[in-house]
Amino acid sequence: MRDFSSNHDALSINTATVRKQWALDRIIDECAHRKIRAISPWRDQVAKVGIDVIARKLKDAGIALSGYCRGGFFPAKDKAGLERALDDNRRAIDEAKLLNAPCLVLVVGSLPGALEGSPDYHDISRARQEVFDGIAKSLEYAREVGMPLAIEPLHPMQAADRACINTLEQALDICDRLDPEQSRALGVAVDLYHVWWDPKLEAQIARAGKNRLFAYHVCDWLTPTRDLVNDRGMMGDGVIELKKCRKWMEDAGYAGFSEVEIFSDYWWSQPGEHVLDTCIQRHREYV
Amino acid sequence: MRDFSSNHDALSINTATVRKQWALDRIIDECAHRKIRAISPWRDQVAKVGIDVIARKLKDAGIALSGYCRGGFFPAKDKAGLERALDDNRRAIDEAKLLNAPCLVLVVGSLPGALEGSPDYHDISRARQEVFDGIAKSLEYAREVGMPLAIEPLHPMQAADRACINTLEQALDICDRLDPEQSRALGVAVDLYHVWWDPKLEAQIARAGKNRLFAYHVCDWLTPTRDLVNDRGMMGDGVIELKKCRKWMEDAGYAGFSEVEIFSDYWWSQPGEHVLDTCIQRHREYV
Repeated sequence: MRDFSSNHDALSINTATVRKQWALDRIIDECAHRKIRAISPWRDQVAKVGIDVIARKLKDAGIALSGYCRGGFFPAKDKAGLERALDDNRRAIDEAKLLNAPCLVLVVGSLPGALEGSPDYHDISRARQEVFDGIAKSLEYAREVGMPLAIEPLHPMQAADRACINTLEQALDICDRLDPEQSRALGVAVDLYHVWWDPKLEAQIARAGKNRLFAYHVCDWLTPTRDLVNDRGMMGDGVIELKKCRKWMEDAGYAGFSEVEIFSDYWWSQPGEHVLDTCIQRHREYV
Repeated sequence: MRDFSSNHDALSINTATVRKQWALDRIIDECAHRKIRAISPWRDQVAKVGIDVIARKLKDAGIALSGYCRGGFFPAKDKAGLERALDDNRRAIDEAKLLNAPCLVLVVGSLPGALEGSPDYHDISRARQEVFDGIAKSLEYAREVGMPLAIEPLHPMQAADRACINTLEQALDICDRLDPEQSRALGVAVDLYHVWWDPKLEAQIARAGKNRLFAYHVCDWLTPTRDLVNDRGMMGDGVIELKKCRKWMEDAGYAGFSEVEIFSDYWWSQPGEHVLDTCIQRHREYV
């Protein structure tokens, strides 16, 4: 297992972590200043500054991407909605390509309208079929362009509104059906916040292997957790066995970045400089 | 599939649903008044009134139990703690027997101290082993006395502090190891709130079969859900496909009560009479 204690070469910052403090161009400057070598930006943050400006800034700063957030949200109440989702995913793939991302992360969606509090239907198996079909179609285009797609299983507490793929096993079953040859066109993003609880996690990481493990996200699970979305913990403040899980990842062949992604009303209320410095320190000590 | 639309013979009320409104003796009176044929009471509610009083009241009212809540919380930081948990589970089994419950429901526990915000350790696989050992030991006594134990898988969002058994598959794996002969000494309580999201739910209910399906709990999953514990919805107000899931249960051989269990700050703020009347109406329409 790699030693993270003496440097932060393997650290990536998911830019949602400081999205309330700074725009993306400033985030890039602050990361460069701290010799953080990679980020994973969100589409809305990129759009706000302009994708060409961001591409140039990343190049000038020598900062790589560990992923691009995000594609997905495939289910819809009607055909027109399904088509719109596919169009949007093609655009996300193009943006990921322009930014030289190693993969586009897919938050696949679930019951359409649920995120707005009013689901168009309740049939989660229909949503799962629409997700499967959406990934299959997006994968055709992604293969043409050469952009790997990383399915991110989301925590079951987000199964109704954000993603109906909720375990690593379920994600890998889809990978096996759509990419049986393990071509590295389709894989998974393992975010420990979403999967740490899973009794099959170790076995499924081993099953995934290096041909499926495209990204690795860390933060921590707080006790108590006060919100289903925006109460993630800083590494070391919660109960996730971060080093044990990273060993499973590396034993399976993963050698990429560990990306810190913290949605947290608390950390969003702190100065961005303090958040990034804490990420670096905790990454060395706990990840 | 049974027709629930014209009566509520199959309805049971988990007494936590109105625990803020009434003491247990009053709950029994209110249920009897509405011809509700079964309840599932909690140990603290029983203790507050006195178990002999409750046993007599249930008999006089002709109200059965659909389960007794609860045993479990096996993990502990040291041997003395593990022993105390086993003692407590023996007492719970005795109480369940005295009240003529069909099963004792097990909320198995997880990282000790986590519920109080300060976990004694973070190793969830240790907690899972302590749970396995605790069930094994409790089962010996439960078999002697003749009290079936029902493992309740809890939602993964409660994996750190309340239960480290989080899927039906995981619960059934334990049943298969400890009761391979399917003697009906050990089975599961299927609470849809905890398992509705699971892509393997239908298959695992079928696997369980009637020899493992001891209890069936219903409520609903709200979008949005504002609290990890106390924001459950009334049946019909959320996204769970209640009838589809009940069909899976009945196809697998389950013919028992469907027990309404709603932890909800909202419903606890309503008059108890209104809550029970709504349970009856929604049970007919949505369950």
